[in-house]
Amino acid sequence: MTITLHYFDVRGLGEYIRLLLIDQGIPFTDHRFEVFGEEWEKLKKTMAFGQVPCLTDGNEEYVQTGAIMRYLGRKYDLYGSNISEAAYIDMVFECVRDLRMKYARYIYYSEETKENYDNVTLPGILENLSKLLKTKFVVGDKISIADYVLFEELDVANTTAPGSLNKFENLKQLHANMSARPNIKKYLSTRSARINGVDRQ
Amino acid sequence: MTITLHYFDVRGLGEYIRLLLIDQGIPFTDHRFEVFGEEWEKLKKTMAFGQVPCLTDGNEEYVQTGAIMRYLGRKYDLYGSNISEAAYIDMVFECVRDLRMKYARYIYYSEETKENYDNVTLPGILENLSKLLKTKFVVGDKISIADYVLFEELDVANTTAPGSLNKFENLKQLHANMSARPNIKKYLSTRSARINGVDRQ
Repeated sequence: MTITLHYFDVRGLGEYIRLLLIDQGIPFTDHRFEVFGEEWEKLKKTMAFGQVPCLTDGNEEYVQTGAIMRYLGRKYDLYGSNISEAAYIDMVFECVRDLRMKYARYIYYSEETKENYDNVTLPGILENLSKLLKTKFVVGDKISIADYVLFEELDVANTTAPGSLNKFENLKQLHANMSARPNIKKYLSTRSARINGVDRQ
Repeated sequence: MTITLHYFDVRGLGEYIRLLLIDQGIPFTDHRFEVFGEEWEKLKKTMAFGQVPCLTDGNEEYVQTGAIMRYLGRKYDLYGSNISEAAYIDMVFECVRDLRMKYARYIYYSEETKENYDNVTLPGILENLSKLLKTKFVVGDKISIADYVLFEELDVANTTAPGSLNKFENLKQLHANMSARPNIKKYLSTRSARINGVDRQ
């Protein structure tokens, strides 16, 4: 069984999945292609659902970021130890998703000014996330799928709105802990060299 | 352990949860209050996360629709029989969620005309959902959390854009199957009498 992640050659929604696979040392093919380019147009027609991110695991094909992350969470024991922990992981996941939606409304649809996003919207959501993060990771000392999505969004916030994490000691700490994990650290150094700063579609 | 659903007195995101609890015959308190009214303003301050829908189960408090539905799915065995089925349930769940987002962009933000939504956006997403639905329910003959969210969105589509399901025989059939389940049938007759058509916030 070999895993392949098919996604555009940007961070975007695929980055959560890459971070998880890389950190866990799970061998996979990182199949990247130009955003809405020719390769994608051809590939799309061969896929059951015609959308990315798409993860193939043997003969199975999964789409939708939330479904792929949860699938990997179940498969590699990154989804808490009981239904209460799993629910908490989902709560943080969905809260981060709200942040991503708000970011999209600002960055792609220009429905909000950068000033308002940076000074009102972003700090409001970071405050909620800060309240949710009560332990080293989202649930205790054990990493879960929620930590990867949270880390990625914090990393974006840190880049697009430098200093935005400063008020939230626990979020800063999580960002630092995640960045320092050996496989992630190595990946981030490569990524920085290849793609400067935040790029997303 | 008693379950209470706290939500505004509209269908909205809370309706997925109500439908699941009612259909499964799970006793719960359907705590409803006026949208952004005085009761909500007071209640909000007493809640750990200050947002609804909120489900309390004994001393535990869960927010975020996607987290609450999945929690109930795990607790009451409505989440498939293996990780592949669970992933498929999540895929449909997330696809329905895309539909809800598009609907919100049209109805609340007026970013799309009714004509375009009804004739282009809605049929496009219904076509994807129709492809995903290959069996009686989302996974085989056993109901799952995805069937409740799919049913609710089909019911909304059927009301706001009458005839929109006609081209999709399997979606129409799922809508009919769900509507005919005894507990849901009884609830829908009460709901129709109390709230005329679709109301959502």
